[in-house]
Amino acid sequence: MRQDGRKNDELRSIHIEPNFTIHPEGSVLITVGQTKVICNASIEDRVPPFMRGQGKGWITAEYAMLPRATEQRNIRESSKGKVSGRTMEIQRLIGRALRSVVDLSAIGEKTLWIDCDVIQADGGTRTASITGAFVAMILAFKKAIEKGSISKMPVKTFLAATSVGIDQKHGAILDLCYMEDSSAEVDMNLVMTGKGEFVEIQGTGEEATFSETQLAELLALGKKGINELIDYQKSIIGAFTLPDHREASK
Amino acid sequence: MRQDGRKNDELRSIHIEPNFTIHPEGSVLITVGQTKVICNASIEDRVPPFMRGQGKGWITAEYAMLPRATEQRNIRESSKGKVSGRTMEIQRLIGRALRSVVDLSAIGEKTLWIDCDVIQADGGTRTASITGAFVAMILAFKKAIEKGSISKMPVKTFLAATSVGIDQKHGAILDLCYMEDSSAEVDMNLVMTGKGEFVEIQGTGEEATFSETQLAELLALGKKGINELIDYQKSIIGAFTLPDHREASK
Amino acid sequence: MRQDGRKNDELRSIHIEPNFTIHPEGSVLITVGQTKVICNASIEDRVPPFMRGQGKGWITAEYAMLPRATEQRNIRESSKGKVSGRTMEIQRLIGRALRSVVDLSAIGEKTLWIDCDVIQADGGTRTASITGAFVAMILAFKKAIEKGSISKMPVKTFLAATSVGIDQKHGAILDLCYMEDSSAEVDMNLVMTGKGEFVEIQGTGEEATFSETQLAELLALGKKGINELIDYQKSIIGAFTLPDHREASK
Amino acid sequence: MRQDGRKNDELRSIHIEPNFTIHPEGSVLITVGQTKVICNASIEDRVPPFMRGQGKGWITAEYAMLPRATEQRNIRESSKGKVSGRTMEIQRLIGRALRSVVDLSAIGEKTLWIDCDVIQADGGTRTASITGAFVAMILAFKKAIEKGSISKMPVKTFLAATSVGIDQKHGAILDLCYMEDSSAEVDMNLVMTGKGEFVEIQGTGEEATFSETQLAELLALGKKGINELIDYQKSIIGAFTLPDHREASK
Amino acid sequence: MRQDGRKNDELRSIHIEPNFTIHPEGSVLITVGQTKVICNASIEDRVPPFMRGQGKGWITAEYAMLPRATEQRNIRESSKGKVSGRTMEIQRLIGRALRSVVDLSAIGEKTLWIDCDVIQADGGTRTASITGAFVAMILAFKKAIEKGSISKMPVKTFLAATSVGIDQKHGAILDLCYMEDSSAEVDMNLVMTGKGEFVEIQGTGEEATFSETQLAELLALGKKGINELIDYQKSIIGAFTLPDHREASK
Amino acid sequence: MRQDGRKNDELRSIHIEPNFTIHPEGSVLITVGQTKVICNASIEDRVPPFMRGQGKGWITAEYAMLPRATEQRNIRESSKGKVSGRTMEIQRLIGRALRSVVDLSAIGEKTLWIDCDVIQADGGTRTASITGAFVAMILAFKKAIEKGSISKMPVKTFLAATSVGIDQKHGAILDLCYMEDSSAEVDMNLVMTGKGEFVEIQGTGEEATFSETQLAELLALGKKGINELIDYQKSIIGAFTLPDHREASK
Repeated sequence: MRQDGRKNDELRSIHIEPNFTIHPEGSVLITVGQTKVICNASIEDRVPPFMRGQGKGWITAEYAMLPRATEQRNIRESSKGKVSGRTMEIQRLIGRALRSVVDLSAIGEKTLWIDCDVIQADGGTRTASITGAFVAMILAFKKAIEKGSISKMPVKTFLAATSVGIDQKHGAILDLCYMEDSSAEVDMNLVMTGKGEFVEIQGTGEEATFSETQLAELLALGKKGINELIDYQKSIIGAFTLPDHREASK
Repeated sequence: MRQDGRKNDELRSIHIEPNFTIHPEGSVLITVGQTKVICNASIEDRVPPFMRGQGKGWITAEYAMLPRATEQRNIRESSKGKVSGRTMEIQRLIGRALRSVVDLSAIGEKTLWIDCDVIQADGGTRTASITGAFVAMILAFKKAIEKGSISKMPVKTFLAATSVGIDQKHGAILDLCYMEDSSAEVDMNLVMTGKGEFVEIQGTGEEATFSETQLAELLALGKKGINELIDYQKSIIGAFTLPDHREASK
Repeated sequence: MRQDGRKNDELRSIHIEPNFTIHPEGSVLITVGQTKVICNASIEDRVPPFMRGQGKGWITAEYAMLPRATEQRNIRESSKGKVSGRTMEIQRLIGRALRSVVDLSAIGEKTLWIDCDVIQADGGTRTASITGAFVAMILAFKKAIEKGSISKMPVKTFLAATSVGIDQKHGAILDLCYMEDSSAEVDMNLVMTGKGEFVEIQGTGEEATFSETQLAELLALGKKGINELIDYQKSIIGAFTLPDHREASK
Repeated sequence: MRQDGRKNDELRSIHIEPNFTIHPEGSVLITVGQTKVICNASIEDRVPPFMRGQGKGWITAEYAMLPRATEQRNIRESSKGKVSGRTMEIQRLIGRALRSVVDLSAIGEKTLWIDCDVIQADGGTRTASITGAFVAMILAFKKAIEKGSISKMPVKTFLAATSVGIDQKHGAILDLCYMEDSSAEVDMNLVMTGKGEFVEIQGTGEEATFSETQLAELLALGKKGINELIDYQKSIIGAFTLPDHREASK
Repeated sequence: MRQDGRKNDELRSIHIEPNFTIHPEGSVLITVGQTKVICNASIEDRVPPFMRGQGKGWITAEYAMLPRATEQRNIRESSKGKVSGRTMEIQRLIGRALRSVVDLSAIGEKTLWIDCDVIQADGGTRTASITGAFVAMILAFKKAIEKGSISKMPVKTFLAATSVGIDQKHGAILDLCYMEDSSAEVDMNLVMTGKGEFVEIQGTGEEATFSETQLAELLALGKKGINELIDYQKSIIGAFTLPDHREASK
Repeated sequence: MRQDGRKNDELRSIHIEPNFTIHPEGSVLITVGQTKVICNASIEDRVPPFMRGQGKGWITAEYAMLPRATEQRNIRESSKGKVSGRTMEIQRLIGRALRSVVDLSAIGEKTLWIDCDVIQADGGTRTASITGAFVAMILAFKKAIEKGSISKMPVKTFLAATSVGIDQKHGAILDLCYMEDSSAEVDMNLVMTGKGEFVEIQGTGEEATFSETQLAELLALGKKGINELIDYQKSIIGAFTLPDHREASK
């Protein structure tokens, strides 16, 4: 049994609170175990320069942590005057992941900004960000449809993310908390769709390597976890999805 | 009557949730009307270079807003690579205000970091930050006393802050929301103690001026509001204060 | 008696040299005791983006110190690559103060840039900057009227600033020099108009607080000093003001 | 057949020139098709602060492109004053990959700096960087052994990287050039060892997703390519490896 | 005899490899002794803001070193987030030197970007950059003439650069390598044309001075060296120059 | 005759006001025609890291312009967050020039900081800075000798600087004002000693070249001007120089 009593293939408890703050078009607070992330979606009526004139939209993400989201206080990136490599990597990942399930040509020349702000961290902040940002995005598009600024839901399928890893004591485990993540030899983030397809696989051995057999085990665990996360997302935003967006997941 | 139905001398509803996140030594979520700020207090076992060797502690603050705390999304200061003048002014104010009621020589060479992160803004974010940060600070010192790293509560009196202003339609009003703040001719932030003394008065006419009579009216309103805020703080942290810290306020 | 022989309610000697440098539309060197600030006013034929299309002008200020304006050499902000919080606070204050006495709609879409460069510092650099910048501004508007680029003096009243403070030895004192400022428990900057109204009150207890009685004493001292400063300004720029700008001060 | 006449499972021509420049401890020019990267390895006699006192070494990498390595000139990151997210992601990847095959405790408190500078780019610059950096690292360690500053080769196995992808016209293809990379729906970078184990899998659908079957196909292609790259590396640095480093690859 | 066996008035061996990389309009690798610089010339169809609307072109240069171009590894300027004074001085020099021999009105509103990237340094990197950049520029203009985007070669004469210096042991010497440069008392960079005229003289005594006699000696040495460099340039790009560009050098 | 009535070989009027501000160890205001520069010299009791442990001192300079030193207002370098190439070039030049006449081993591990702040610019600001900084430096060393922190004047000879240039209308001219500098084809800055030796020659053809004959003419003019400047410096600081520092100039 793992340190928090979970089985190897067990997710942490998950909770998504929709409409967490009042200003954003879409806003949720996602809680995965002790990890808490505010995911806000904003719609802006223009696209970045490299996208202009193509009649298509764009989705981009920013990610940050409160200084005291962690056990030790971190220096604010605004105080340091630059964004770390880790932050950039995560925000690029979130943006790419969301773009993979959206028909960008269906939203016109608009930008969807996703802001993921971690207020409490206990591992898996990037995957919680994606899982929560997907819901914030649906809320924002729903509001845009109501206001008539886009005509129909441009999202092709559900999307969620989790982590898997290999640990000397437990072998392959699902949804690592911070302590597990720190001691894991292999760490993998998986982003998958409601149709069971992959969007991102980022597997890394930190001062370690892994075999094909281990890879297969990790992918199976991740798929199980993501299916459960998507079921939970559906319970939250079911009422918001449009009738013609029936999922054929699993 | 004001746009949200309040009387001129009426505060917005206030709520402070102690122990809002798990990692900081002191953490609260303060809600003043629609304004919500996470105030975290961290204790670090060293002081900045200019304070070393004096045997005294230091208190410093950082302030930020989530990009979508406001009606329009703001660019992150970490993305811009620099902190705005407004942000610097506010964090200097919060630090100064807290230092005025703490016996810095009673905490040894430690730094108390205050992080105020606005997750939803509707005016008065700097004063809400001070009112909330005071409570977070008490929680942090209480924990330090329990752990034995400081010997007694180093705080001399309660501290809270609010805004007052002058509006063409209503005259002098207490605790301005964002719409009121935008149209006010005179805007004043007041920080006062549980003993009824001033810590900060920052009164400003933006393209306007104000008379001595108007000043007196503003100070009276502010004093009334701050007394109410301190009563509320006591209802929250009463149990945390040490017996020998009886307030002689009002 | 104070360390430099002044009475508690006595200003330091003041001198303003108009037309100090040749290029700016308005230029003065203001000397207050040992504090010397070059105040230059420049008129630019456009406004910042947030003001465009409103048919109104804007006034903005920048403040800096020569590295060796002080007893110890300071690192240049251009070398550090960023402007300190103190500098930003001061330049925001100077801009706001000047805007409060100018009819911005009378100057069209122009920006008045105020540059305050401290060449020798001995306390009160921000208040000397405001007092001097007001004169530089009048000179610049006078020149613009002569050239016909604005039609009449857009300034509504005189404006000056000074500091007051509370000191353990002397009580309330006027116009603090650097040594007095360093040891004062309460420090207040006041900006007032030729009509006796307030523009800015910035009172601060650094690790101290102050009572309503003390506040009243400080305000009275400040008002006395500012009236004297405005009398001096009038002796310098009397000839420059337009006949219809009669002051009803005091 | 692919645009440059290759079969789907065919690598581009590869060439590694050892000792390309004279100053670095290890230096190679790696050419993969039209992609050319200078990989330099430097040994520094200290570790970064977070590693101090552990008796272990560290490996870190920096990556850059000459402005005209590409068809269109890019602005230098030094001129922009900041490093892009893409650059940071790549340099973090190169460092992690090399660390996975080195026994860091065998080199003492030293840092191996890897500099990968792309002088001509045609896709696959990050994988070419890893493949070349591995050789530069071996050369640097060999020199350190000769000088006696480390006692034996601390490298556990060979390491190389390539890309695989899915293209609407050809399906799964190996070692994508720039044109192929731009039009691929799925892009995956693989880093593997001489023992056939994975170090990194980074698979991404850009506005697309991929199935488990497609994943298996990509992994098989990548494995084939990496085996060939490692055979080539051995032909270059065979003489440099120590006798007790017999590979059990494939 | 000098440390590398040269006579006082002897250049190091020089080699220029044209068309070194494939993307730039003009590209060379110049080797002067152990110094190696990639010089790339790019033509952009617009000019910087300060040149717009004048119907003339512009030439600008950027210069950088690979971190391990030198004996000790240097920190990348992109990592430091700013460009050093030395780098700026060199890139300003290269741009000015090239502009002095080009008829900017003959190229229309285009910018010629010169990128000089030092891959191996042994003294004289700025003069090698100029000598190489001249050739890269000719190649780029030749290609523009072929494509018809400019009508004729806008270059008025040849251009090359070298260093001269005074050394306690040898007196005046030509083309200093790094060791000689470090110990020289006087260091001078000379840029001259194919017509024997000066473009730049930058002579500096570092903690030393020099007389008129010494100056004359240095200028004579430099002139000799530059004539030889221009003869070499002609051997490389002779075929590229247009018939009406006959040099009257020496 | 030149636009301001001067002959070709005539300097502008020069004036140096010693002890211009009170805090620096040495302070002058130098006026050359309409150019005015405050030159302050500060002595710090340590050297930069690269000089530590050698028992020698260091001299370094910083240069800046007030925003409105010029006809058009310039953006502050502190606001831009970086120092321009021009500024860096000038401050490197000033530092090098002063170091050439000082026996750095005679001052111990101290740094002399020179701050040159241009308050009014009309051409020749860098040469006026050097001429003025030399006097500020002498004042600072004189004070250090009085205080006993250095034992004797470490300066070996006088030092001054001026500009010369070639103009289509007048030919070779001395000490260019801004209008002359803008239209000159060749511009040269000369720094020379009281012994008639060169310290710096920086001659530049901007889109032009110059012959050996023209160079000789420029050097002769510059030498004449610098001799006059040094005579003036002696009239100002004669009393400050130590008896054993007899000049053998001209």
